[in-house]
Amino acid sequence: MPRALPFLALTLGDPAGLGPWVAAAAARHPGVRRRARPVLVGDAVFLRQRLFRTALFHPLKKIEDYSATPGVVNVLNVPAPLGSLVLGRPQAAGGAAAVSALRAAASLAARRQVAAVVTAPVSKESLKMAGSPHPGHTELLAALTGARRVEMLMAAGPLRGLLLTRHLPLKDVSRRLSAKEIVAGVRLTDAFLRKKTAKPPRWVLCGLNPHAGDNGLLGHEEKRVVRPAAEALRRAGVRLEGPLPADNAWARHAAGDFDAVACLYHDQGMIPLKTLYPKAVVNVTVGLPWVRTSPGHGTAYDLAKDNYLRADPSATVAACLLALDLAEGK
Amino acid sequence: MPRALPFLALTLGDPAGLGPWVAAAAARHPGVRRRARPVLVGDAVFLRQRLFRTALFHPLKKIEDYSATPGVVNVLNVPAPLGSLVLGRPQAAGGAAAVSALRAAASLAARRQVAAVVTAPVSKESLKMAGSPHPGHTELLAALTGARRVEMLMAAGPLRGLLLTRHLPLKDVSRRLSAKEIVAGVRLTDAFLRKKTAKPPRWVLCGLNPHAGDNGLLGHEEKRVVRPAAEALRRAGVRLEGPLPADNAWARHAAGDFDAVACLYHDQGMIPLKTLYPKAVVNVTVGLPWVRTSPGHGTAYDLAKDNYLRADPSATVAACLLALDLAEGK
Repeated sequence: MPRALPFLALTLGDPAGLGPWVAAAAARHPGVRRRARPVLVGDAVFLRQRLFRTALFHPLKKIEDYSATPGVVNVLNVPAPLGSLVLGRPQAAGGAAAVSALRAAASLAARRQVAAVVTAPVSKESLKMAGSPHPGHTELLAALTGARRVEMLMAAGPLRGLLLTRHLPLKDVSRRLSAKEIVAGVRLTDAFLRKKTAKPPRWVLCGLNPHAGDNGLLGHEEKRVVRPAAEALRRAGVRLEGPLPADNAWARHAAGDFDAVACLYHDQGMIPLKTLYPKAVVNVTVGLPWVRTSPGHGTAYDLAKDNYLRADPSATVAACLLALDLAEGK
Repeated sequence: MPRALPFLALTLGDPAGLGPWVAAAAARHPGVRRRARPVLVGDAVFLRQRLFRTALFHPLKKIEDYSATPGVVNVLNVPAPLGSLVLGRPQAAGGAAAVSALRAAASLAARRQVAAVVTAPVSKESLKMAGSPHPGHTELLAALTGARRVEMLMAAGPLRGLLLTRHLPLKDVSRRLSAKEIVAGVRLTDAFLRKKTAKPPRWVLCGLNPHAGDNGLLGHEEKRVVRPAAEALRRAGVRLEGPLPADNAWARHAAGDFDAVACLYHDQGMIPLKTLYPKAVVNVTVGLPWVRTSPGHGTAYDLAKDNYLRADPSATVAACLLALDLAEGK
């Protein structure tokens, strides 16, 4: 008898957005099913009402009741009060449903019942409306697992971008940077990447300013913060170049000179990743006791109401495949 | 008798950097010579000493003395005190030579003796050391020509990125943004692009913050400045979407949805352009009475001393070809 495929949990995210659709599409994807037994985690009644045209949903009370029947999509039922949910906009009910599903999935992962968790998108607004003290999935997962530190690593094809600050207004990035935080973030992620590679990964650290500050003419953060962080990282044995101008760092990463780019702010990483791989950006949480990935896009409320079948689940499929790679130590 | 090819001026930029090499290489490039009579503008003695292995330099006192002999590179001689120049670092002599060459080229362009000017890179540091009150070529050209407003449009392949702020520390971008400046910059560039296209160009305007501010959760500039600017532009007849998250805007520009991206800060435009076209980014100055382009890279002091022959003049060749397109109204 062949070894059973691992279970893979996929939360539905905010049900008012594209989450249920992309999660269900990924759970039906042959490439995913070849490697795992995918289980959606969320409200099964809502799923059946919303997506009955796309699959046969099989609700489970416990994961062992998984049905391997072709065409069937298994759902670990996490009931949520979604009777008056309005598609296509943030609201408390959507945020609350996303949190419940995430808790259920985290509990499966903690008990090693699933190999990894893939989370469909939630919006910061709906989380806030639901009263969550955590601005996003990443912070919520850190709190749920008691992780001391988590990092957001964005992956697309062979590219890797670590976001050393995350969801901050751009004007606040400069004062939030510190050499200590840069060092801690890169070291944690370096250890994470080393688990998968024979050689230490080759990093490049971006500067903050145009031309990485042009020797102080265009800003002082490079001299005061970024360069000292780079030097401390090199002393600690991290194989790292920089700080380099961000455009140069990314061009050289795309050309294969580096394995990962350490980015000082959200768009410094997201712009090149999305431009090169518009449909395949995956968000990986580094620092959790188990593997979690998600598609690197938002709820896409604008598509959720009428056009969800035109939306592309590729990033969620990519998130599943990368999660399985990571769970297998690849 | 066939119509004579137009003259094209190429300044040497900072002679301590890669400028002389990339300019001379572009002036010898068959694709450039097929369409123009390229003339280097700078110190002919320095060029001969430095690059005698790469070409036969023919010094001109006036442009009419151009030699069409194959293999010969013509140089409009602008003597500069470069006897003690040290290759590979910024210094006053290098900045001063770049300014003299630019003045000479601007004078040729003003008298319509050249179809366009392509400038090799200068560093902000050497300009400052030379006592220039202007931080870069673009500002210097605005002063030389009396242009009321100039814009920096970056081009690479089919991509166009307008940089609405330029060489500013990142932390200062937020307070330097204004709806009035965004509107003026996009309108000037829109008029420039319309000269070349039958249909009005399709613009997208980027937001400043992650997720374009996520409805105010991640910054307020979108609501206060960027959205009002977008609405004013649409009222003025500019075909423009946005503000969109910058990663989304660039992904859709790369996919062909837009003709140009209006970027709020330097790296918002430079990162995707350099990542997609590492060797072909061209800087176009919008708002001058004549055409000026330059390669979208710096002096590369690190390569200038010993490794200049390994450097790639592709961006300067691209700058020449785009300058000729623009001069011909293409």
